[in-house]
Amino acid sequence: MIGIGLIGYGYWGPNLMRNFSRQDGCKVHWVVGRRESRLDPLRSQYPGVKVSTHFDDVVTDQSVDAVVIATPVLSHYPLALRALEAGKHVLVEKPMTSTVDEGQRLVDEAKRRGLVLMVDHTFVYTPAVRRIRDLIQHGQIGDVLYYDSTRINLGLFQNDVNVLWDLAAHDLSILDYLIDDVPTAVSAVGKCLVPNAPESIAYLTLFFGGPAIAHINVNWLAPVKTRRVIIGGSRKMLVYDELEPSEKIKIYDKGIDMVETPEEGQMTRVNYRVGDMWAPALDSTEALHAMAAHFLDCIRNRKPAETSGEMGLRVVKLLEAANRSMRQNGQSINISHS
Amino acid sequence: MIGIGLIGYGYWGPNLMRNFSRQDGCKVHWVVGRRESRLDPLRSQYPGVKVSTHFDDVVTDQSVDAVVIATPVLSHYPLALRALEAGKHVLVEKPMTSTVDEGQRLVDEAKRRGLVLMVDHTFVYTPAVRRIRDLIQHGQIGDVLYYDSTRINLGLFQNDVNVLWDLAAHDLSILDYLIDDVPTAVSAVGKCLVPNAPESIAYLTLFFGGPAIAHINVNWLAPVKTRRVIIGGSRKMLVYDELEPSEKIKIYDKGIDMVETPEEGQMTRVNYRVGDMWAPALDSTEALHAMAAHFLDCIRNRKPAETSGEMGLRVVKLLEAANRSMRQNGQSINISHS
Amino acid sequence: MIGIGLIGYGYWGPNLMRNFSRQDGCKVHWVVGRRESRLDPLRSQYPGVKVSTHFDDVVTDQSVDAVVIATPVLSHYPLALRALEAGKHVLVEKPMTSTVDEGQRLVDEAKRRGLVLMVDHTFVYTPAVRRIRDLIQHGQIGDVLYYDSTRINLGLFQNDVNVLWDLAAHDLSILDYLIDDVPTAVSAVGKCLVPNAPESIAYLTLFFGGPAIAHINVNWLAPVKTRRVIIGGSRKMLVYDELEPSEKIKIYDKGIDMVETPEEGQMTRVNYRVGDMWAPALDSTEALHAMAAHFLDCIRNRKPAETSGEMGLRVVKLLEAANRSMRQNGQSINISHS
Amino acid sequence: MIGIGLIGYGYWGPNLMRNFSRQDGCKVHWVVGRRESRLDPLRSQYPGVKVSTHFDDVVTDQSVDAVVIATPVLSHYPLALRALEAGKHVLVEKPMTSTVDEGQRLVDEAKRRGLVLMVDHTFVYTPAVRRIRDLIQHGQIGDVLYYDSTRINLGLFQNDVNVLWDLAAHDLSILDYLIDDVPTAVSAVGKCLVPNAPESIAYLTLFFGGPAIAHINVNWLAPVKTRRVIIGGSRKMLVYDELEPSEKIKIYDKGIDMVETPEEGQMTRVNYRVGDMWAPALDSTEALHAMAAHFLDCIRNRKPAETSGEMGLRVVKLLEAANRSMRQNGQSINISHS
Repeated sequence: MIGIGLIGYGYWGPNLMRNFSRQDGCKVHWVVGRRESRLDPLRSQYPGVKVSTHFDDVVTDQSVDAVVIATPVLSHYPLALRALEAGKHVLVEKPMTSTVDEGQRLVDEAKRRGLVLMVDHTFVYTPAVRRIRDLIQHGQIGDVLYYDSTRINLGLFQNDVNVLWDLAAHDLSILDYLIDDVPTAVSAVGKCLVPNAPESIAYLTLFFGGPAIAHINVNWLAPVKTRRVIIGGSRKMLVYDELEPSEKIKIYDKGIDMVETPEEGQMTRVNYRVGDMWAPALDSTEALHAMAAHFLDCIRNRKPAETSGEMGLRVVKLLEAANRSMRQNGQSINISHS
Repeated sequence: MIGIGLIGYGYWGPNLMRNFSRQDGCKVHWVVGRRESRLDPLRSQYPGVKVSTHFDDVVTDQSVDAVVIATPVLSHYPLALRALEAGKHVLVEKPMTSTVDEGQRLVDEAKRRGLVLMVDHTFVYTPAVRRIRDLIQHGQIGDVLYYDSTRINLGLFQNDVNVLWDLAAHDLSILDYLIDDVPTAVSAVGKCLVPNAPESIAYLTLFFGGPAIAHINVNWLAPVKTRRVIIGGSRKMLVYDELEPSEKIKIYDKGIDMVETPEEGQMTRVNYRVGDMWAPALDSTEALHAMAAHFLDCIRNRKPAETSGEMGLRVVKLLEAANRSMRQNGQSINISHS
Repeated sequence: MIGIGLIGYGYWGPNLMRNFSRQDGCKVHWVVGRRESRLDPLRSQYPGVKVSTHFDDVVTDQSVDAVVIATPVLSHYPLALRALEAGKHVLVEKPMTSTVDEGQRLVDEAKRRGLVLMVDHTFVYTPAVRRIRDLIQHGQIGDVLYYDSTRINLGLFQNDVNVLWDLAAHDLSILDYLIDDVPTAVSAVGKCLVPNAPESIAYLTLFFGGPAIAHINVNWLAPVKTRRVIIGGSRKMLVYDELEPSEKIKIYDKGIDMVETPEEGQMTRVNYRVGDMWAPALDSTEALHAMAAHFLDCIRNRKPAETSGEMGLRVVKLLEAANRSMRQNGQSINISHS
Repeated sequence: MIGIGLIGYGYWGPNLMRNFSRQDGCKVHWVVGRRESRLDPLRSQYPGVKVSTHFDDVVTDQSVDAVVIATPVLSHYPLALRALEAGKHVLVEKPMTSTVDEGQRLVDEAKRRGLVLMVDHTFVYTPAVRRIRDLIQHGQIGDVLYYDSTRINLGLFQNDVNVLWDLAAHDLSILDYLIDDVPTAVSAVGKCLVPNAPESIAYLTLFFGGPAIAHINVNWLAPVKTRRVIIGGSRKMLVYDELEPSEKIKIYDKGIDMVETPEEGQMTRVNYRVGDMWAPALDSTEALHAMAAHFLDCIRNRKPAETSGEMGLRVVKLLEAANRSMRQNGQSINISHS
């Protein structure tokens, strides 16, 4: 039985609570939160859970094996570090930390102690994203030529991170999971549309060593909600629409073929290929449930998570570079892979 | 009666022919084209029109008052220059020229001779774009905070210009028409997805002196056709979808208000406003018809066109800067306004 | 404090439990269910509630003021009757009963005892339907000329009632609420698509004394889920799409005007009017919450419910007539209003 | 070279003119129309065609082999009959005639004289409908359980026929082409929403000898245009949306399976099957072009048309019965197949 302490009970904490409560082989011993108004319904809904406003109660409790951190980004690092130092496995909300340095230290600490450090990049555990990876791995898409994401809606404005760290973080984790090629540079632009608040609209481009390019359009101030990713491949093209109730992935047998046309003076002509469209049925596993189960599985079998600390660190590295590029209006920033 | 010579009878030429044929007070005397296979149906459909493969036939004909140029971009400059030098008014397809220098020379030549130089930025003449301008001018949108365009589809690949010069040119003309503020810099990224062809995917950001930011997503290799512009204003937000059969413009009374919350430690809180949506009926004028009528009107009354040479030149200036930025992976390029 | 007993804890029961638990001024004392597998999670989630498999425990408990019945349709009548006879107010799921006779007896019994008898026609309490009623009452739609509903999806097949009693019952309650005019006859057709099961596809037409006609298309075996009602009025037309996440109601200023055209031989010509479209913002009250609050309010103030037993009886009357019409392949059946 | 006379040059005539002009092996000699305002542009666009206001000019011209009739429905019969009597092949717009008697006489006359009599049920020649037939013929859909069509929009109101004869005629021809089973009875309801005009809203149900049921919802007074047919099969389900620009047909591997469940007291349980969706690419032949080519092919090879006079007569028979049913508010009317 894996004992769990949940830190943070704001927007996302209740979802984590619900999912860990349903898992076999684990028990949530503690929930730490700041606002009593939030904690009261928790007490009546989960009578067996101890509620506290002190993180220390959790890290000093020997029955706690793992700590789940769902607090604002700035506090991820100190909380996760102390949990690791106390010998606890750690699952932390995305983005893992607010700087690369912090992220590196968490990764090092976890490695040194042989503890599981995992980041809740939930999208990696959705049936849709996993199916897309399968399709890519089996060569059905061909080479990935581009990844184009539009992830916009009205709110939720955040105070401590900008829209890139909030929304583009999803795409960076999906890209890390889908594409084996490694980003070599980023270019980002953005704007603060609200006084004294972080950037609420931003555009991020990733350059890769190989043929691919990725672009991510994120916006907290859009009148319509959109969650659409287009993936252009050399063999097929794919549209992934998270908001579609049933056909979330559509695969188009569309593309171009280059044809030599001697009669037109050796010019190369483009032939368009327009074939069938196909939407595979996806299983209906809840991503958060699969993520929680994977965390427990990694603890039990001491294996690295699919969304490991290393992966979370790669995402933070890209976000930090994107911030720098944004300050310089799109200047390309190289990504070092030491 | 204004005599017209049409140069180029490929993809767009027949549309211009059809529209100028229906105008009162003008007559198309000549059509110049290169491929006989295209010109034969023209002869039977418009029996009174002279057909030639020589541009000289047109510029030396005294009955020709105006020349309409619908040839590949690289030939716009030499053809338009010779037409102006022969004293003809000129309407040229977008983009006006392939360099700023060429564009400047055309503008100067037209000015020196008192001739109309107009660019066929057709979108400026659509009922939708004109209605959006009205809404902005009357303050209904408030300050324009962002303009976000997605203009993607499969094909038509072009050989002489990249996807920015083909598709983003539309948005640059729309922006020039809609927003009084002037772009101060651009950042662009893009990629050649097809060997030996120009960039077929690109992303262009425009920075302005004022609060606005504009972003344009163009792609010749997308599985789904999209023509969607989102305009975020300080008062209202707007979605303009060119592919909607009837409600092309939707205005959302959505946005945020900043509220001081003393009880939460003087923090500013974001309040979301979600009000009605409204789709104004648009008149059904064909844009190309309105554009042709405007060209004739400008000739008759010697007045500058709404899509004048100067405007066409501003678009080319931005495209040239975008190309330079793209070669440097997004490096911001300043726009001079001499 | 109004004491409540909830009978039935299958598909809908948990929703009722959740909503009555959140109401002020009432307390759910009992839940009666048949399957232990369902009742176990209930016990842990609502520790204070008594759970039983015997209806008698509830009706004999003096602390129970009102009984909420969410069992299969065939059992509505005996359960509701015994509850009324025991002096309890009754809220029953739709359709109220499976015959007109049964419905009439419940109505009579409630009236004789001065008890509240209410039917959970939830749609009447949605912000969308209430807004449509407002629009009609204020004359914005004009005379209602037609009501055309498509309510189709895959499942949930039921054993004891056909698709009319399951899905068309929603439209009949909405129509009763929206339109003052009274149905005078019905015509229905339908088909059993699954052996030994009730009709799973059906089409129901209602004729009214006035100008309106209503048509309801219901289907348990459709590949796409649709919940669309079109209301044609003499002044405006309206589309109500329950599945739209934000703009559920769209009002179109469209229609026709009849014009006398003397020059064309006194013929009457139809002129089409195509004006603006408008989607009013709706408040976000949960319908079930409003329904529960209304039931408690009716008990406290001894007032008839908006979805009273009389209204539920009118719906059953139409459904019974529809069944008869369906057996005769669409033969029109008159509705008596004694 | 087949000589053709086109009678009627209103709404549809120009489309027929354009398509027959492009066919090889035929020549349109005459166009007969009533309004000079329509005929003038015809003269300039097709200089070689003789224009007349007298039908006699056409039937007495020996160079005319076939007459194409695109006039109001009431005149179909006298014009077609005289053309057949003059030994001309006949193509007539749908519906073929306004009564069964008239239709029977045309069929008899054409048969007696060995002439081609064909009805322009254009939808039968669309790539979408032909593909659906292929799918059904190859057993991919299984048994057709239902055909559910919604064909609604604003206008075009007609004076001489009601909305069934205008819009439902399309579905009746599609059904005749798709389904081998024969309608045994119809039930229809409808309403005149405009004073002194025919029914502008109607609902038509077809009963078959086999398991299928068909329902057609037609409306000239709807705020949104819809052209959606759902076909439920025992193996797969299909949605055909004529307004989709690219994926007009979507095939859903959805349905139900009946499972015996002994542990639940021998009850039969419904299992839902939700599999992939698939949208086959369709070729882009224009239906009207294929229809015109087929007419010429039938003349050349003296073979019966796919949309023969017999087929047109079957459609008229159903429409006439539908009218009778509508007058009796949905009373089922048997269809005799003598």
